[in-house]
Amino acid sequence: MKLATLDNGRRDGTLVVVSTDLAHCAPAGDIAPTLQAALDDWQTNEPALRARAEALAAGTAEGIGPFTPARARSPLPRAFQWADGSAYVTHVELVRRARGAELPERFWTDPLMYQGGSDTFLDPGGDIVAVSEEHGIDFEAEIAVITDDVPMGIDPLAARDLIRLVMLVNDVSLRNLIPGELEKGFGFFQSKPSSAFSPVAVTPDALGEAWRDAKLHLPLESILNGECFGRPNAGIDMTFDFGQLIAHAARTRPLCAGTIIGSGTVSNREGEVGSSCLAERRMLETLEHGAPRTPFMCFGDVIRIEMADAQGRSIFGSIENRVVRAGA
Amino acid sequence: MKLATLDNGRRDGTLVVVSTDLAHCAPAGDIAPTLQAALDDWQTNEPALRARAEALAAGTAEGIGPFTPARARSPLPRAFQWADGSAYVTHVELVRRARGAELPERFWTDPLMYQGGSDTFLDPGGDIVAVSEEHGIDFEAEIAVITDDVPMGIDPLAARDLIRLVMLVNDVSLRNLIPGELEKGFGFFQSKPSSAFSPVAVTPDALGEAWRDAKLHLPLESILNGECFGRPNAGIDMTFDFGQLIAHAARTRPLCAGTIIGSGTVSNREGEVGSSCLAERRMLETLEHGAPRTPFMCFGDVIRIEMADAQGRSIFGSIENRVVRAGA
Repeated sequence: MKLATLDNGRRDGTLVVVSTDLAHCAPAGDIAPTLQAALDDWQTNEPALRARAEALAAGTAEGIGPFTPARARSPLPRAFQWADGSAYVTHVELVRRARGAELPERFWTDPLMYQGGSDTFLDPGGDIVAVSEEHGIDFEAEIAVITDDVPMGIDPLAARDLIRLVMLVNDVSLRNLIPGELEKGFGFFQSKPSSAFSPVAVTPDALGEAWRDAKLHLPLESILNGECFGRPNAGIDMTFDFGQLIAHAARTRPLCAGTIIGSGTVSNREGEVGSSCLAERRMLETLEHGAPRTPFMCFGDVIRIEMADAQGRSIFGSIENRVVRAGA
Repeated sequence: MKLATLDNGRRDGTLVVVSTDLAHCAPAGDIAPTLQAALDDWQTNEPALRARAEALAAGTAEGIGPFTPARARSPLPRAFQWADGSAYVTHVELVRRARGAELPERFWTDPLMYQGGSDTFLDPGGDIVAVSEEHGIDFEAEIAVITDDVPMGIDPLAARDLIRLVMLVNDVSLRNLIPGELEKGFGFFQSKPSSAFSPVAVTPDALGEAWRDAKLHLPLESILNGECFGRPNAGIDMTFDFGQLIAHAARTRPLCAGTIIGSGTVSNREGEVGSSCLAERRMLETLEHGAPRTPFMCFGDVIRIEMADAQGRSIFGSIENRVVRAGA
């Protein structure tokens, strides 16, 4: 099943079911007005939503129309939690290596995770509004899952069963603000402005073979100003699966239905596949040439993030964000 | 105007207006079903809510009943954002001094702030469910404000006008998990389990003289197992006012209505007034005796946090949290 949130002028949009090929959608606001409402009582709403998706496929649902990604909001336009892991430890190792720091051994067993802002997500096609290019504007292509209620202290295997939806995310970062913030010790804040999610969120079963071991085994493509920048496979070199990331988040507190957990920047050790963020390429350049050659994003730059299935069909629709100057 | 959220078996409770003396309340769910809904369109809802509060005071509102704090949820039982500052820099300085570290000069001009989990707040009278006493369970008594929509890049003075409600918070901390998490560089996560807020949230005008310069000039009392632990004045030694904290949060992104901004642990330089968390007292003991003498919270311990007006009347009702063992 594929779900999306369309703009209806309200803060949380309106819920629709989307056809497998992303061509059509049918209203589902009568089942649950918003995706958060659907998640708040998933046990009741899921069967009705699946029935609606079947009726859409059969052409018998009421109100079927074309699915227009330009009208899509992030599936949860705002969420009660966005917690982003850093599951591709090979990426973290690179970051460290570029600045001459060792990777602590525990990073292979104890996930890195930060609490992100979740109150104002960008639309999938929304602008990244930035104050200054000097902030070091970067994209990060990632996979994210939306959970049901998660009890405190859950184990990683049980946590897998509480994954309700999967989507893509562009975790926008302001790289040049990061060192100053992390130095203060309290983690990211101003260096992590609003993120954008893919137009469509998909139940794990709809991913078929590609979803196994709580990982998504397909290349994630980042296209910068029309050119392929990277397409690492999200199932490769993911040190912590989503069950482990959820369990980490829920160690000392329960998680509310609608919690979004991110994978961190997708990265493969095999370098030919490119990168999912500018910072990683810049680190590779630093290791090779002594200094980065690729600049961070400039006003006007466009990053597109998408994932195709084995047949080359887009699964989630595209995230496509243009960088614009604040107040312009 | 005073507002509260009563338990109605649903995730976000139901909105009520509360009398100034906290004795009575009247339903307001017909105006806005939840406090978040009220904040989502404050301009429309505020006049109707104020009229309801006047009708409550006059005894003419429908459905007036006793206000039972035991039925109160946190005003926002879950929120789209909880960002906690550390505005009492004197407290931060103490923390540093106790571990022999200098306070960077910029800490007096650049607020510390962390992104907190906001998906599962405790009830004002809820239990702090903890895995182990070894985690170093601590309370933190703070002031918090709830904002309207805040545009990116707002200045601190303009931000003051977007404060809609004021309340108290117990920002629960697991002190012994903090060093390991901060060492990883991504800030707090497992070390900051769910926080609890006061039963009642109050508009700034209802605080009268005590609310000025975007600070709350009254003693905040923490009572541990029935004994006064501290009553520092929240208006004293607050280096950054709430306008400055909001502007800091909104530097690189807008904030959604319903954003909660915390002051950080209230702390006065003048030591006679006691502390608003165990960690601070333990630091003072370390400075005086070379080691802390006061233990962190044990299972069964109860922390009560409240604030009285100049006439000794409770403004927000009490937060009262008991520490219980997970799974007990």
